[in-house]
Amino acid sequence: MLSQHDNELITKTGPGTPMGEYLRRYWVPALLSRELPEPDCPPVRLKIMCEELVAFRDTNGDVGIVDNYCPHRRASLFFGRNEECGIRCVYHGWKFDINGDCVDMPSEPAESNFKDKVKIKAYPAEDWGGFIWVYMGPAELKPELPEVGYALVPEHHRLVSRRLQENNYVQGIEGGIDSSHISFLHFGLPPVRRDDPNNKTLSNRDGAPHFIVKTTDYGFVYGANREAGDDKYYWRLTPFMLPFFTIIPGGDGNPDERTYSGHGWVPADDENCWMFTYSWNASRPLREGEGHSASHLELEPRTMRSVVNKDNDYGIDREMQRTQTFTGIKDISVQDASIQESMGPICDRTREHLGTTDAPIIAMRRMYLKACRDLMEGVEPDVPRSGSTFRVRSVAEVLDKSVTFDETTERVPVAV
Amino acid sequence: MLSQHDNELITKTGPGTPMGEYLRRYWVPALLSRELPEPDCPPVRLKIMCEELVAFRDTNGDVGIVDNYCPHRRASLFFGRNEECGIRCVYHGWKFDINGDCVDMPSEPAESNFKDKVKIKAYPAEDWGGFIWVYMGPAELKPELPEVGYALVPEHHRLVSRRLQENNYVQGIEGGIDSSHISFLHFGLPPVRRDDPNNKTLSNRDGAPHFIVKTTDYGFVYGANREAGDDKYYWRLTPFMLPFFTIIPGGDGNPDERTYSGHGWVPADDENCWMFTYSWNASRPLREGEGHSASHLELEPRTMRSVVNKDNDYGIDREMQRTQTFTGIKDISVQDASIQESMGPICDRTREHLGTTDAPIIAMRRMYLKACRDLMEGVEPDVPRSGSTFRVRSVAEVLDKSVTFDETTERVPVAV
Amino acid sequence: MLSQHDNELITKTGPGTPMGEYLRRYWVPALLSRELPEPDCPPVRLKIMCEELVAFRDTNGDVGIVDNYCPHRRASLFFGRNEECGIRCVYHGWKFDINGDCVDMPSEPAESNFKDKVKIKAYPAEDWGGFIWVYMGPAELKPELPEVGYALVPEHHRLVSRRLQENNYVQGIEGGIDSSHISFLHFGLPPVRRDDPNNKTLSNRDGAPHFIVKTTDYGFVYGANREAGDDKYYWRLTPFMLPFFTIIPGGDGNPDERTYSGHGWVPADDENCWMFTYSWNASRPLREGEGHSASHLELEPRTMRSVVNKDNDYGIDREMQRTQTFTGIKDISVQDASIQESMGPICDRTREHLGTTDAPIIAMRRMYLKACRDLMEGVEPDVPRSGSTFRVRSVAEVLDKSVTFDETTERVPVAV
Repeated sequence: MLSQHDNELITKTGPGTPMGEYLRRYWVPALLSRELPEPDCPPVRLKIMCEELVAFRDTNGDVGIVDNYCPHRRASLFFGRNEECGIRCVYHGWKFDINGDCVDMPSEPAESNFKDKVKIKAYPAEDWGGFIWVYMGPAELKPELPEVGYALVPEHHRLVSRRLQENNYVQGIEGGIDSSHISFLHFGLPPVRRDDPNNKTLSNRDGAPHFIVKTTDYGFVYGANREAGDDKYYWRLTPFMLPFFTIIPGGDGNPDERTYSGHGWVPADDENCWMFTYSWNASRPLREGEGHSASHLELEPRTMRSVVNKDNDYGIDREMQRTQTFTGIKDISVQDASIQESMGPICDRTREHLGTTDAPIIAMRRMYLKACRDLMEGVEPDVPRSGSTFRVRSVAEVLDKSVTFDETTERVPVAV
Repeated sequence: MLSQHDNELITKTGPGTPMGEYLRRYWVPALLSRELPEPDCPPVRLKIMCEELVAFRDTNGDVGIVDNYCPHRRASLFFGRNEECGIRCVYHGWKFDINGDCVDMPSEPAESNFKDKVKIKAYPAEDWGGFIWVYMGPAELKPELPEVGYALVPEHHRLVSRRLQENNYVQGIEGGIDSSHISFLHFGLPPVRRDDPNNKTLSNRDGAPHFIVKTTDYGFVYGANREAGDDKYYWRLTPFMLPFFTIIPGGDGNPDERTYSGHGWVPADDENCWMFTYSWNASRPLREGEGHSASHLELEPRTMRSVVNKDNDYGIDREMQRTQTFTGIKDISVQDASIQESMGPICDRTREHLGTTDAPIIAMRRMYLKACRDLMEGVEPDVPRSGSTFRVRSVAEVLDKSVTFDETTERVPVAV
Repeated sequence: MLSQHDNELITKTGPGTPMGEYLRRYWVPALLSRELPEPDCPPVRLKIMCEELVAFRDTNGDVGIVDNYCPHRRASLFFGRNEECGIRCVYHGWKFDINGDCVDMPSEPAESNFKDKVKIKAYPAEDWGGFIWVYMGPAELKPELPEVGYALVPEHHRLVSRRLQENNYVQGIEGGIDSSHISFLHFGLPPVRRDDPNNKTLSNRDGAPHFIVKTTDYGFVYGANREAGDDKYYWRLTPFMLPFFTIIPGGDGNPDERTYSGHGWVPADDENCWMFTYSWNASRPLREGEGHSASHLELEPRTMRSVVNKDNDYGIDREMQRTQTFTGIKDISVQDASIQESMGPICDRTREHLGTTDAPIIAMRRMYLKACRDLMEGVEPDVPRSGSTFRVRSVAEVLDKSVTFDETTERVPVAV
């Protein structure tokens, strides 16, 4: 349970809010690289942490992310022309490069130096791992790009996507670091009982895993162990990578050859977020249809919501729910969206009742609240500056019960 | 005319508002019995007096009406599974019975007693007269179910329905206790004149009826008499049954054999209400197509608005309005909706000009305001506790002018 | 740049706001005459300066513009019956004439004099130049109707229209008195350069015209001169006629025989406006397809927005934008709408950077702010009372550079 004050602290991310300032100290995904497919292609509009922006790829292939509003008379640069190394407002022809400098002002007399005095807000942007990343914080605090697994593999080894979710970003994160819900929301029938002998799926078998959280330099890793029979535990270790990324445990075989997937939840505004999804395999290209189901969803073209969404009750099929799956909702990613959106635009955490399986959620909130309080007191919060900090993966292994959590993280290391 | 303060008092019904607290001292219709057709059928979502709720019929056939939000992490129970005597949240499997007790918490260790500490808000609900009724007030003040006519007849003797109306509930009531408007809104052309010899319809013949209001134990009854020729009055006696029900006068023949209809207006939130409609005949089953026109309207499946609504100007046909009917709008119930919604979400009663025909409206508001003021002063308002109080019907009779209002109510009793 | 305070002053026009009171001292277009095609035709609903109104043409052909809400119980008169010299509410039959007097009250007893005490808000309205004009200010300050060119010609010499634009009215005006943008927003490729020898269009040839503003009795006229080669200037003189009208310079040949067009922007509410468009030729009837493109747009029937609007990104064609026109948007009027709406519902003028070509905009704002401040201090602002003040037109001429602005206005007079 959070106080209303703390709930607002972690959920509000507009300019000047403590949480917004904290998140702006990280590189965050803004859009997919393929949404700006080539130099001088059409610009794309964006909303990140309540800021309206326009992204464009210039003639050199570099990406600019600038204010949506032309500083002259506030026309939208989304309608602008992406021309020779700059975006030109169609209202009076003012043109800006990716650094925000005004490089042409044809509506003013040639002898005027007004052009040199006008800048547009522009944020550093980088193509990295299939995403366009943006850094919206103080220039002097800009960290290295995170060396996430999917950025370190060839392009055909990864699959990336994004979609809009109609809820505050924290609800997305709280679903992502909640190993417990996979035993319910994502599983088939019959209802989950620890002692059901017909239950073959490891994560289905024990709905009440034990949780252990361990703070790391990239955020934290938490382990959830479930009874797996024969004096063994089924361990799932999930890294929470600041500011809001996860890697889902799964797969079997050699950990170096598995396909991993994960999500990041980027605030659009306080009541909507972008779920970015990445899947990758370090050892081979991904196969057709492989990768997280979220990356295979059909989206509405303008909103980028799933076509199966709250307006159609996520396509819930009550007969299927009664007889085949726990939810009657087809896609894992839509199951997540249905539940996270069902809490309302901003979950009222003053009325929740957290249990033992919510330990990672509590850990995440404490990290966020500490960073917020630091910023409010003028203390610079601790932010990983080195990209190599983020060279991590998840773990899903069956191990003897005698293996401790610490030993687990050593035997099958999360950090790689 | 009301002050802005009093207008807000009677129109706001959220938890903690005086009017909301007063209405919560009555059983109110929540949905139709047939919307929960059988044990363990899919749950239905509800909004009543600004509270978001979920209704389900359990394995025993009993109905539970509980908070929409699971107390664990606030996922919506609408997506829940209606299982063996309880509704189970699909996020982590917490299950609640119709009393709000948590009867299973599979995400917590078996030895945990957390389950016993968690409850969900649950309201008493009863199947009665074709409606599911809910009582949302203090347990110790719960009255008997009202012995309304349609609840005392076999199922085939009644017809019930509900639809959404996009205005505050008081506008609905004020249309329901306004005998005067039937001479205009619901009638055909030519325009209504008291002295028109071609005017055959009794209620059409005299657009300026005289009103008399008499307080009763169930609320009040008002009589409206119109000139009926031959030294007679056409009397219409309408009961206003607390907190917001009416029975429309009509029909002829033996009062015990007439088909009666009426409405109740249940606040959804402060700008929308549910109009519940009931028709019944104590002496025989209803015939095909019989009963109030509101129960035969085609509704939009998700919103439960009429498909003929404000977005299409209620299908107004100006040529029909010019030559055939007063409004050019086809259905009586849509005529009511058009006018009540046209006042805006909450009618600005500081700018109205009430006339003599608005006497019942004034009586209703006084009752409401008195109850609100009682509650604000810590005085428990007078609420009928006995179900038999509501054994009433309406009256429509032509009587000699010499018969007084009091005699009228004796000769053709409203109370039955 | 404006302060937030001044931006609100000029953009808010509801009853009681300084700018709203100032605008209410002028006749403003309310709808097209053809929208009330004949006596006793269906009423039309309107929203002007945040006031909800209903317009009807009575049996004599006179137009009434009255409050949307019947003073009895606040039903909308839009659903009313337009009967023998009055509009009758369908709820209880109260009837009002164009002066706002209640002329029938059939729901009250015949002997009642309540009718004489009830009035509805009614504004003077006039058919003039193809528009219905309304005067919403103090009766004693009502000026003459403006003798605008299109009102002084036979009906077939003019073309009028209106459409909704989803932004504050000031953004419309600021586009209308901005001669500079036509060199960009409305022109073809290649990009505009002053020195491009292939550039044949006069207004395209010089993107940085010089501006001169001259205050007049009707508002102001501004001249914009562009290099036209051979020691000549291309002059465009645009009158700004209070409170919010313009005439676009254009055409060639004898100024008395040109077809002129212009716009006025009437606030609907603070975030939407009605763009009224007029085209006329004093010397001959307009030809098929002639007149401003805004008058040939297809509109959505209920909203009266262009069917090409923000919901479909104004039909922008990025390939056309890359190779053919500056915007990739087809219609001049839609180009204007796209840019004006893209600034948001109310442009944030605290963040703009005005240049030399924005001189007329600055002049307009100063006039508005002075009028607002006068009203706030109890000083009656200067408003032209004589209709003949508005007998003006625009000028588009190529003249020797030796001709001064003042000489220009004498040689090709704006006032006619």
